Amino acid sequence: MAKKITSRRDDYSQWYNDIVQRADLAENSGVRGCMVIKPYGYAIWEKMQAELDRMFKQTGHLNAYFPLFIPKSYLSKEAAHVEGFAKECAVVTHYRLKNGDNGDVIVDPDAKLEEELIVRPTSETIIWDTYRKWIQSYRDLPLLINQWANVVRWEMRTRLFLRTAEFLWQGGDTAHASKKEAIEETEKMIDVYADFSENFMAMPVIKGLKTENERFAGAEETYCIEALMQDGKSLQAGTSHFLAQNFSKAFDVKYTTKEGKQDYVWATSWGVSTRLMGALIMTHSDDLGLVLPPKLAPFQIVIIPIYKSDDQLKKINSVAFDVKQKLESKGISVNYDARNTHKPGWKFAEYELKGVPLRLALGNRDIENGTIEIARRDTLEKQIVKIENIENEVLNLLEDIQNNLYKKALLFREENTFIANTKDDFIKHIDRGGFVYAHWDGTAKTEELIKQKTKATIRCIPLSDQEKTAGNCLFTGMPSKQRVLFAKAY
Amino acid sequence: MAKKITSRRDDYSQWYNDIVQRADLAENSGVRGCMVIKPYGYAIWEKMQAELDRMFKQTGHLNAYFPLFIPKSYLSKEAAHVEGFAKECAVVTHYRLKNGDNGDVIVDPDAKLEEELIVRPTSETIIWDTYRKWIQSYRDLPLLINQWANVVRWEMRTRLFLRTAEFLWQGGDTAHASKKEAIEETEKMIDVYADFSENFMAMPVIKGLKTENERFAGAEETYCIEALMQDGKSLQAGTSHFLAQNFSKAFDVKYTTKEGKQDYVWATSWGVSTRLMGALIMTHSDDLGLVLPPKLAPFQIVIIPIYKSDDQLKKINSVAFDVKQKLESKGISVNYDARNTHKPGWKFAEYELKGVPLRLALGNRDIENGTIEIARRDTLEKQIVKIENIENEVLNLLEDIQNNLYKKALLFREENTFIANTKDDFIKHIDRGGFVYAHWDGTAKTEELIKQKTKATIRCIPLSDQEKTAGNCLFTGMPSKQRVLFAKAY
Repeated sequence: MAKKITSRRDDYSQWYNDIVQRADLAENSGVRGCMVIKPYGYAIWEKMQAELDRMFKQTGHLNAYFPLFIPKSYLSKEAAHVEGFAKECAVVTHYRLKNGDNGDVIVDPDAKLEEELIVRPTSETIIWDTYRKWIQSYRDLPLLINQWANVVRWEMRTRLFLRTAEFLWQGGDTAHASKKEAIEETEKMIDVYADFSENFMAMPVIKGLKTENERFAGAEETYCIEALMQDGKSLQAGTSHFLAQNFSKAFDVKYTTKEGKQDYVWATSWGVSTRLMGALIMTHSDDLGLVLPPKLAPFQIVIIPIYKSDDQLKKINSVAFDVKQKLESKGISVNYDARNTHKPGWKFAEYELKGVPLRLALGNRDIENGTIEIARRDTLEKQIVKIENIENEVLNLLEDIQNNLYKKALLFREENTFIANTKDDFIKHIDRGGFVYAHWDGTAKTEELIKQKTKATIRCIPLSDQEKTAGNCLFTGMPSKQRVLFAKAY
Repeated sequence: MAKKITSRRDDYSQWYNDIVQRADLAENSGVRGCMVIKPYGYAIWEKMQAELDRMFKQTGHLNAYFPLFIPKSYLSKEAAHVEGFAKECAVVTHYRLKNGDNGDVIVDPDAKLEEELIVRPTSETIIWDTYRKWIQSYRDLPLLINQWANVVRWEMRTRLFLRTAEFLWQGGDTAHASKKEAIEETEKMIDVYADFSENFMAMPVIKGLKTENERFAGAEETYCIEALMQDGKSLQAGTSHFLAQNFSKAFDVKYTTKEGKQDYVWATSWGVSTRLMGALIMTHSDDLGLVLPPKLAPFQIVIIPIYKSDDQLKKINSVAFDVKQKLESKGISVNYDARNTHKPGWKFAEYELKGVPLRLALGNRDIENGTIEIARRDTLEKQIVKIENIENEVLNLLEDIQNNLYKKALLFREENTFIANTKDDFIKHIDRGGFVYAHWDGTAKTEELIKQKTKATIRCIPLSDQEKTAGNCLFTGMPSKQRVLFAKAY
């Protein structure tokens, strides 16, 4: 049997890397900071995409596609945007190679671009350059567009899924006739992300606003969802930005109102990325490997035959195919692994590592008794059930696993969430890891001071009503309207 | 009402551009040669993707994702490949921008990459560099992977969908233990493409082999499908390559056979792109606009209310919603356009332009009579039907439209396919446009000569048995094993 993965306690970071690699999710490529997403990892991402896409369409959005390249001059148009973004990115300067003298390939110096192109780190600028042509009248609004694409940010320190130079994402970019409507859209989409996180990823999140420091470059307000990972660090799982009229003014996107006046449109943008894969892994997995919520598992069930002779296998095959068909007719995805190249024990370990929610084992005695063994990946519990009830048993178990994973993650978060009422308390809790609610005076200066002292950042100013009590900043004693959420973060 | 589009007879090229723009399919962007795919165009591409993806998965393929960037040195590894590809492509040389002195943004000269990165023109090299790690034993084979991605080829003369610097595509890359199995895969996938073209796009295709001249860079054999457009030019709609051991040798991908020996694996690659959008448009559309086969239409039905008062509209709404629901319950996609910002006449023209297969109109008299007017986009025929039979009427009509479009396209191809038995005949038919079957001596020299003289290229050496009669080359008189397919091409 293959060697075990590193335990969380021994080395959390290595545990994560072990799971990503050993569960065949992704690997580093020959290109610095760029990952290869392997078929099993990509299948999970496809499930995420499908659900999110359905939710976007249900809320009235249409997909479109905008160019990979952004002319350099576009980035300068929105001042705050270029400040926040234009630093580390891939720059295309030439458009031709030619054969060198030594049988190698060289860049053709004669093929230099007049204006350099940036590989999109995000698409707002090219999209708003396009919207100028699409929007004339209030009749063209709202414009509700989403894009699925790859983006590149030249990160120096990369980690698979969590921070890579190239990643996959979706970006929504919408245009509205009024400020009110744009803010409603911003809030609607952070709600969609929270809904997806909680009901599909089984990952509880805190919804809130970013402080000015942490806001998206060019946004007037950034809404976010934050999730607590098992090492006590926070992971930003999605953001939704109210862009006000910043981009419409920078790209001169005006519309004729119902009353016949000219006005700039109001904008939002919102996105999630393959980073969610990292969040999913770190929320549920354990020292045996990946644990997947049934709603996002590439296959929810694996059936493994246990046999000593071809004759036994033949009988098992027939029952297994029947079980598979029954389950599939209920919309359950099933992998029957009857490969004779690997032993049952190897398969058990393999699917445990890959986080398949339910493992069904079928042996000779099961065939005689009309039974099957079911093992849950989340609790590792096993039970023997009658095959005649298999659909209901499995449906109930899958639902139970989905709910249990959420509850477990929520319990973990609750056990690792603290309210700090003194500076010492604050430092102690931040050191131990977890979410810490504390009063803050609302200034960027104090925020920076706390970050330098403790490595904690303000993850968000929570939207939830229960946080809205006034007090005094733990570091400066100045008045604070409400506690905000601190944590160390990915 | 908006102005009519250019007719095919007046200016075929402008007709195409008019449809792409006026039907909201795509437009040029501010980035040279890169297009914006608009929501309606993207929705058609999504339908294509969904069907192809289903077919790939049904034939055992899994999706994965490989880096956007290819290190320059990778391209040199497969000699024929670099010859064919490495010329016109986007080259990333720097990884950082900085603020210039005039509030502008400049490329940071200190952030030069040690090795330039090429934006993938195709992914074989990076994929085979990865496969070396994935393939050790015959147990790892076959490896059947597909990738959906964007690719960039720095084309000088671009046309929306047909030839753009950036385009969307899928590339399959498979590895096999034997030559026989790899050839079978190559053939299987060209069959999948032909099946998709004919049964979803309603576009008849000729399957064949490319001559050595037209083969993919690095392939030992290239299979293709060719479709005839309405201007008499051929469009290559998909290719499938048998790569032999060229890439496995270049990237040192060996496996241990069942017998314990080391051998290089056998490879295939195959792809289609957003170019299929151009093929779809040019196969079916007419002088009124786009015509879509029902299987790929973003919505198959539009319902338009015709009313004089709010009271009438209210009654129509209620019947329309009922009809919509009935149709949707049969899996038919429906858009009920009750916007009061546009008149029915405008809507009729708009949906005609957008190629919606069936238009249903509901007026006051229809409500009284329990009827609805149905208009077909392909034949422009109208009929009044009873609402009580609407599901069956519509299902039959959609099927009929799908079949009719294929038959019409096939008839067009047959009427524009010629067998040339003399050189003069050949030149005359090529000048007029269409497919021309003719004998050819099998040499690249003659192929080049014919191309220079007539602008026709050998589209393929057809696989169909009925073409396998021997004869003599029309240009050199040398013996020829079979007629090959000539045409001017996109």
